[in-house]
Amino acid sequence: MTFEDSDPIGEFDVIRRFFSPSKGSPSQGHFSQNPVLLGIGDDCALMNSPPPGEVYAITSDMLVAGRHFFKDANPTLLGHKCLAVNLSDLAAMGAKPIAYNLSIALPDIDIAWLEQFSNGLHTIADVHDCTLIGGDTTAGPLTISITAIGTVHPQQALRRSGALVGDDIWLSNTVGDARLVLGFRRGEWNTPLPWQELAIRMDGPTPRIDLGLGLRGVASSAIDVSDGLLGDLGHILDASKVSAKIWIDDIPCSPPLREVSLELRRLCTLKGGDDYELCFTAPQKNRSLVQSLSEHLHLPLTRIGEVTKRIPEQPNMALLDKDNVPLPVDLAKQYMRSFDHFK
Amino acid sequence: MTFEDSDPIGEFDVIRRFFSPSKGSPSQGHFSQNPVLLGIGDDCALMNSPPPGEVYAITSDMLVAGRHFFKDANPTLLGHKCLAVNLSDLAAMGAKPIAYNLSIALPDIDIAWLEQFSNGLHTIADVHDCTLIGGDTTAGPLTISITAIGTVHPQQALRRSGALVGDDIWLSNTVGDARLVLGFRRGEWNTPLPWQELAIRMDGPTPRIDLGLGLRGVASSAIDVSDGLLGDLGHILDASKVSAKIWIDDIPCSPPLREVSLELRRLCTLKGGDDYELCFTAPQKNRSLVQSLSEHLHLPLTRIGEVTKRIPEQPNMALLDKDNVPLPVDLAKQYMRSFDHFK
Repeated sequence: MTFEDSDPIGEFDVIRRFFSPSKGSPSQGHFSQNPVLLGIGDDCALMNSPPPGEVYAITSDMLVAGRHFFKDANPTLLGHKCLAVNLSDLAAMGAKPIAYNLSIALPDIDIAWLEQFSNGLHTIADVHDCTLIGGDTTAGPLTISITAIGTVHPQQALRRSGALVGDDIWLSNTVGDARLVLGFRRGEWNTPLPWQELAIRMDGPTPRIDLGLGLRGVASSAIDVSDGLLGDLGHILDASKVSAKIWIDDIPCSPPLREVSLELRRLCTLKGGDDYELCFTAPQKNRSLVQSLSEHLHLPLTRIGEVTKRIPEQPNMALLDKDNVPLPVDLAKQYMRSFDHFK
Repeated sequence: MTFEDSDPIGEFDVIRRFFSPSKGSPSQGHFSQNPVLLGIGDDCALMNSPPPGEVYAITSDMLVAGRHFFKDANPTLLGHKCLAVNLSDLAAMGAKPIAYNLSIALPDIDIAWLEQFSNGLHTIADVHDCTLIGGDTTAGPLTISITAIGTVHPQQALRRSGALVGDDIWLSNTVGDARLVLGFRRGEWNTPLPWQELAIRMDGPTPRIDLGLGLRGVASSAIDVSDGLLGDLGHILDASKVSAKIWIDDIPCSPPLREVSLELRRLCTLKGGDDYELCFTAPQKNRSLVQSLSEHLHLPLTRIGEVTKRIPEQPNMALLDKDNVPLPVDLAKQYMRSFDHFK
């Protein structure tokens, strides 16, 4: 409300210059018609029906400077990450990305920052054929809010509520690096590690879209690891009304994370967030299908546990160490707590 | 990232307690099946196809404390307004609201504030049968980002690009009160006026959903007045490649605004934002249809101008005073400038 008239470019110039769709006309993909009937520039975007038999999957994530990223974060990577975390939710549902809109509050108009940010954003959007269809640009503390839209067959959607007793629990790639990097940047630890190499795991997560698509009809449930592996797995267990045993020292992690103390490794792999890998359950009979998918995608998929019957008044997870001994309840509880912005 | 574990309630409690859908199961409305297949609580919401022949209309608006509203704004009205401004965009497209998601950054967890805010939000959502399907809750400077989804027949969508030379230009209700109140609150003017009565025009705007629906097949274009009447009308004129003449002193305004100086009245009615009335164009042959709609809705609809041919290098609006004399170009330009968050 207090801006002066002297700024060289304004809100509408920013939208025109940086937030026009990266492609002239989006690809039709598996749609019989272009999914986006009308994009940026009107009061609303218009989207055609999803392909016959499919439904739209819709998700939103908001990233706030100083909370989800450091204020001096690399703008290109930030542009990548703010869409990646939304695409990760589509992946966790088994949905194919179609479109997104972006609302952004900017403290000021910094052309160089906007160029890099929008480059990062448009690059990952193009990779996943995801069209920018609208949004809002305003002044305010740096905040990025995206709503992403994908398509999925409702019977194949990877809901959190589908895990059954006896199912395997799987994890893609490795977890814990993002938390390791965060702790280093915050000064929580200072171990000599290849930090520059590791940084990309926090700053440039890869949404596991192809994995999500491949798991349609194979997995019984899925979630993306954004707030910590055990906390997020807990959402599956609660929604499915089951429990789990987890072999916590078998959880796959990167070589640097294998070098640190057992305590730090467990903290990072079990409780660390921001990894955006998929944790999913699948019937044991689908093991070879999951393994084939892993080879096909060149993406490690590791069995980390098993779905068990829920017993009233009992913790919903048994955390087993490398000797198959359950962790003491108090310690286990600490690891099982999801990241909470207000706690 | 720096929150302590001592807060009494956390992120997930906030979602459960305040941002669960206000209704157990949303009404099917004109859908043959429930439009929302899966609501809050998974990685994505799932939405069925729009009814046959219709498409989804999607819009986003972000409201930032200290920019779009004062930090001490009444939380109930704020909850109302942040959805109302999104519904207003659906109205301007002629779309029927279906669902929305909400991403909110909160500086802290203030139970009383959240109760009032969510009451305001759910109340207007219920009025328009608009279901909360998801979102994100995080810590940060108070920022509210909503994406609203509606349905419309693509041929009847009120696009900005449909205005034709000779069309009438119409405005719903009155404009200018929101700007008048803003100026009073900012200390720009201090005229004795019924401020308490006027405040609701800034704090509790009414999205003109029924008007938008009634204008399907009647209006040739529409926009909602959020950034100033002339600036917003300018978007229609640009998209339609036409010009306009406007009888600026005939623009309907409230009795208090008729009492202030001509200069202040013009500033508020022509350039003031935040009114969320609809400005639309319609062929002259539809005058009686528009007037019937006005009576049916008990909502004044006033002709304020006419669409004219665009002449290269000429301003796209002629602003005529009560004596039909065009305003000097420099003065006219000032009124025609849209509100810009960065200018």
